[in-house]
Amino acid sequence: MNAGVALFGGRIESTPVRVSGAALVFVATGMVISAGVAFFDGGGGTLALLVAAAVTAGVGSTMMASAKASERPDSPLAFASVAWAWLAVSVAGALPFLFSGVIGWRRFDDALFESISGFTCTGATILDDIDGVSHGILFFRSMIQWFGGMGLIVLAVGVLPALKVGGLELIANEAPGPTADRFTPRIAATARRLWLLYGGLTLAVAVGLLIAGMSLFDAVAHAFTTVATGGYSTHSASIAYFDSLAIELVLIVGMIICAANFSLHWHTIMRTRSMLRGYSELRWYLGMLGGAAIALVILNAPKLSLGANVREAIFYAASLGTTTGYGTTDYTHETFWTPSAQMVLLVLMLVGGMTGSTAGGMKVLRLQVIARYAVREVIRARHPRAVLSMRIGDMTVAEEVAARALGFVLLYLGLIVVGGMMMTALGADLETGFSGAVSAIGNAGPALGEAGPTATALEFPRQARPVLMALMLFGRLEVFPTMLMFVAAMRAGTRAHYGRLAVHRGSRRMHRRLS
Amino acid sequence: MNAGVALFGGRIESTPVRVSGAALVFVATGMVISAGVAFFDGGGGTLALLVAAAVTAGVGSTMMASAKASERPDSPLAFASVAWAWLAVSVAGALPFLFSGVIGWRRFDDALFESISGFTCTGATILDDIDGVSHGILFFRSMIQWFGGMGLIVLAVGVLPALKVGGLELIANEAPGPTADRFTPRIAATARRLWLLYGGLTLAVAVGLLIAGMSLFDAVAHAFTTVATGGYSTHSASIAYFDSLAIELVLIVGMIICAANFSLHWHTIMRTRSMLRGYSELRWYLGMLGGAAIALVILNAPKLSLGANVREAIFYAASLGTTTGYGTTDYTHETFWTPSAQMVLLVLMLVGGMTGSTAGGMKVLRLQVIARYAVREVIRARHPRAVLSMRIGDMTVAEEVAARALGFVLLYLGLIVVGGMMMTALGADLETGFSGAVSAIGNAGPALGEAGPTATALEFPRQARPVLMALMLFGRLEVFPTMLMFVAAMRAGTRAHYGRLAVHRGSRRMHRRLS
Repeated sequence: MNAGVALFGGRIESTPVRVSGAALVFVATGMVISAGVAFFDGGGGTLALLVAAAVTAGVGSTMMASAKASERPDSPLAFASVAWAWLAVSVAGALPFLFSGVIGWRRFDDALFESISGFTCTGATILDDIDGVSHGILFFRSMIQWFGGMGLIVLAVGVLPALKVGGLELIANEAPGPTADRFTPRIAATARRLWLLYGGLTLAVAVGLLIAGMSLFDAVAHAFTTVATGGYSTHSASIAYFDSLAIELVLIVGMIICAANFSLHWHTIMRTRSMLRGYSELRWYLGMLGGAAIALVILNAPKLSLGANVREAIFYAASLGTTTGYGTTDYTHETFWTPSAQMVLLVLMLVGGMTGSTAGGMKVLRLQVIARYAVREVIRARHPRAVLSMRIGDMTVAEEVAARALGFVLLYLGLIVVGGMMMTALGADLETGFSGAVSAIGNAGPALGEAGPTATALEFPRQARPVLMALMLFGRLEVFPTMLMFVAAMRAGTRAHYGRLAVHRGSRRMHRRLS
Repeated sequence: MNAGVALFGGRIESTPVRVSGAALVFVATGMVISAGVAFFDGGGGTLALLVAAAVTAGVGSTMMASAKASERPDSPLAFASVAWAWLAVSVAGALPFLFSGVIGWRRFDDALFESISGFTCTGATILDDIDGVSHGILFFRSMIQWFGGMGLIVLAVGVLPALKVGGLELIANEAPGPTADRFTPRIAATARRLWLLYGGLTLAVAVGLLIAGMSLFDAVAHAFTTVATGGYSTHSASIAYFDSLAIELVLIVGMIICAANFSLHWHTIMRTRSMLRGYSELRWYLGMLGGAAIALVILNAPKLSLGANVREAIFYAASLGTTTGYGTTDYTHETFWTPSAQMVLLVLMLVGGMTGSTAGGMKVLRLQVIARYAVREVIRARHPRAVLSMRIGDMTVAEEVAARALGFVLLYLGLIVVGGMMMTALGADLETGFSGAVSAIGNAGPALGEAGPTATALEFPRQARPVLMALMLFGRLEVFPTMLMFVAAMRAGTRAHYGRLAVHRGSRRMHRRLS
């Protein structure tokens, strides 16, 4: 609408419109590449992808032309821009599914679901016959996860810590370097380095998968969704389709690396810093995956032979602990995992991977913060007058940083409860509804019960799926930006709307004015 | 063991032993009274109760004689004493069930379960034929809930806020008066007033139930368990046995009053303060119950006719929102409530009643704190430099108070997750295991699924029930004291054990020593 206004007047100052437009143009190039794949594959979808690209590029460039970025950007505006851009590309990403007829127009909500699940690197699908879809469309479907992961890495390593969201500035302390103190100039440099790394990892996984026996198409598509810890497969049976230990091993290594902090990888490659020394989040992350795998083997012992058990346990610990969501079993969780093993998987999805990675969940670092916080309160009950600082690794966590992390976790858990209740109210059963909420906000993909890793999101009632879409976006953008997109969309309007809040602010500016 | 040592030497200085001894003697008098009921009723159990009383009184008085209270009591020691006393009476409370043969010796763990469930005012039972048990034993069973509630009121209104546990000192701010600034002298006065109030409410409920048509025995027994928000009934069918709207109405009013803050009741009766003015927790509490009842009516509309629906919705909102746990339906949750309605009930159990009441759960006030906390972090994300104070009602919440409340909630949720995982690992299914953990730590009683309000705790595997026992104790004693009982039992030993912690303390004492 802003674009429309601008066509008949000057350019409006709206960073969200400008950024969303640029993101749309970027996605349109992905559609053109996918159209190329579709053309050479011959399986159809070329025209649909080209039309979608034309529409997306048209809308995107109009938006870019009609709006200019704010000259005085601040954090809330950056948040809002990112959130709106994610929503814009999600709408655009639905077009190829609709144009190609893979998803009918009367199921436009499902096309949007598939696109949101892609861009948020979740991996829940509503396609019940993936093998029957043309390679061009499947390539595009994997690519949007890759785009999502690419945007995310920059967001998670470059933007969010600098903006001090949800306690994530801890990364800045733990790994000084790629995080930006001031906004614009250093983020661009950081982004270039990260994309290089991201592209390199994608290539490495693709080569690994080729060697392990995948076709070129499958290898590239799975490399896209592995580094993005997304989990879209090109087969309905997911990784069970290949039934190959070698492929599973490549994927396990790829998933574990890509759910670890990317700035950590950069430092390791550059030898600026030893990988393990002082990096407590990595130890917790690997400890959790290892512990979960062992727990799964023990808890699932009655159900499987030892060999199969160990193989499944390690794969699923990696797949769900990194919030990727690949499956290696053609049967659902219900029959396969014991209830206690399902709980382990649910906790893995809740916690998710490391900060600064493509993984979802509430992040290992925040788990560390809340664990230290809770332990401190127990000690304080014993020693009421003690002055206790919180330490994670070799650094001290400031009170306000811990407060932000806690506020994040509370909102996160609150959204799971509200989302789960809405799901059950809309017809999902308790187990599916709640595990679905945990999985969606954690951007994992599969849920428990009937909606396991090789099942589809069609297990959820259609009217309940918009709840999942909202949770995927909330989780992906680390909750706060998504909430802010509704309040900080227009810079011009904010002061008027937030007049009441200003009373509480007592900021330096007010003091200056008063004195 | 300390008692034994003391018999051959002088009196040891151990507040926990002294307090536990006194509590045992108190419970022994309850056994004698129950024996009187059993004698006049003629239904058996008199001898069992007298023998149990003799054993309990003997052990209790020996403990009292062999230990003296510490001359320098501090908060952790007070915590530990309360926690050990609760454990001691729970063991003693199991004796009448065993001696009378109501629970066989080979099921001694179940006798302990029944006793813990009683003293913690939970109300989960392992008796599958309650109607077949003698009146004397049932009277005792209801009485231990009453005792538990009595101890709890003093703990929750008099002791915990003064000791600043889990953010509960907020009560002291909201309702100044009965809370103690200094430890011993004012607590005694507060306790007297509270017990007067507690006794008066019990009498009022008993009279109300008599008028509504209960027998004298049933009225007294249900009055005991209503004011304690415990939920033990004298019939297997719980309140469904009576099938009386009048009885249900009396119980609803009684439960709602007794899960509200007792110091508030005192002020209202004494006209020192208007009941509603400035008391935001009460508004939230009543709002939650009302909101839940409306939600239950809407969500359960497909299952019941409107009249029955409204009646059940209000009763269950009161029964589970106050963590009492009475049931009015002879069928289980599974068939009766829709999944979304079950979720409403689960959230009610999780939150529980008001602070300073006999109710369990994490308490409405703490929900208010975390809600304000989370909202503040969202506002802070929008206005990074704003100085935002947290307000609840007409008072400002100090940061360290909020920190304690948050630490409590995190531990509480952590225990539910750990407890639920242990339950499922020990053979419970997901729904039963997790709702059981929520119900046990919230001291509600009934769970969801197969373990609904008119089912018994026998639905849980025997090996999983100790987890429930631990959770009931943790929840009842507000988590921190139970954790401290393991570390602060012996005053003499603490300094040595906590030498390492002292490094972190930096307290005034250390500064004084160094300077």
